[in-house]
Amino acid sequence: MSIGSPWKRTSTRLVYENPWIRVREDQVITPTGSPGIYGVVECRIATGIVALTDDLHVYLVGQYRYPTETYSWEIPEGGAHDGEAALVAAKRELREEAGLTATDWQPLGGEIHLSNCFTSERGYLFVARGLSQGAAQPDDTEALEIRTVPFLDSVKMVETGEIVDSLTIIAILRTARMLGV
Amino acid sequence: MSIGSPWKRTSTRLVYENPWIRVREDQVITPTGSPGIYGVVECRIATGIVALTDDLHVYLVGQYRYPTETYSWEIPEGGAHDGEAALVAAKRELREEAGLTATDWQPLGGEIHLSNCFTSERGYLFVARGLSQGAAQPDDTEALEIRTVPFLDSVKMVETGEIVDSLTIIAILRTARMLGV
Repeated sequence: MSIGSPWKRTSTRLVYENPWIRVREDQVITPTGSPGIYGVVECRIATGIVALTDDLHVYLVGQYRYPTETYSWEIPEGGAHDGEAALVAAKRELREEAGLTATDWQPLGGEIHLSNCFTSERGYLFVARGLSQGAAQPDDTEALEIRTVPFLDSVKMVETGEIVDSLTIIAILRTARMLGV
Repeated sequence: MSIGSPWKRTSTRLVYENPWIRVREDQVITPTGSPGIYGVVECRIATGIVALTDDLHVYLVGQYRYPTETYSWEIPEGGAHDGEAALVAAKRELREEAGLTATDWQPLGGEIHLSNCFTSERGYLFVARGLSQGAAQPDDTEALEIRTVPFLDSVKMVETGEIVDSLTIIAILRTARMLGV
């Protein structure tokens, strides 16, 4: 545990692992002094990219999300490989998912903790501009649709609840504030 | 699987369970036709409440988050009990965590999928106004600090990266748009 934690970990064991997530169960003493357990899901860094065209359209990726059993329109997103920096992963994902490269990359706000009750997952967002289109190379498991929409339409999709993915909602609302729209 | 899913599940097994999360591993056929596995974390509905005072201050709860090993300032949040509606859970959490009741409850935007790569977790946000202060009754495991800040200061905390929790970021940015600030 980090210094200053009011939790104490007395032991830990790995309870499940696959190539994407790792679940451990810790024996703990809670901040109020009672013994207990804590199940923690560890996974890779998540990255998301607001890819903006010169005429203020944004790229969205549509895919069926297996865990939620819903079709979801999102900004291009992906997990970093082991030891891969967030920006490097974001550049790779944008190229693989949407076939895009960009000359201008900026971080979009700070770190995001996606669901800090049970996972240590962290997300990082970027704005990419100066886009050039190449060929997409999605993962073997992915069946993706790609489209561009005017940025204001993406804000509307957040407001109407058509966009539900948390990283995408944050990315679009942060960009809207940045652009003053 | 729901109708229209491009994934096929051929079998499933429970690999870990505690009172808060349940992890299953499914044998699947991916959208591109290859066999594979998918580990899915199931958990309770998450709720979050923007509790706004008449002079536009917002309640924040500070606590150490064990999975991320960081101290985090957030809106009051909590999981629904089995079968408990999101609004009922939100009212209970606001009372337990902050000792607050409210006369006016409004949903704040639609459903949020917090981390749809590996969990089915869904979040629901509410704005609560017409607040009355009573005594808080936090869970035995919780050691919480409570404070109110001017709403615009909470927006600043999101912008500077002092607030990192995804539900809280979304709640504050949605409220800022709603209030036009």
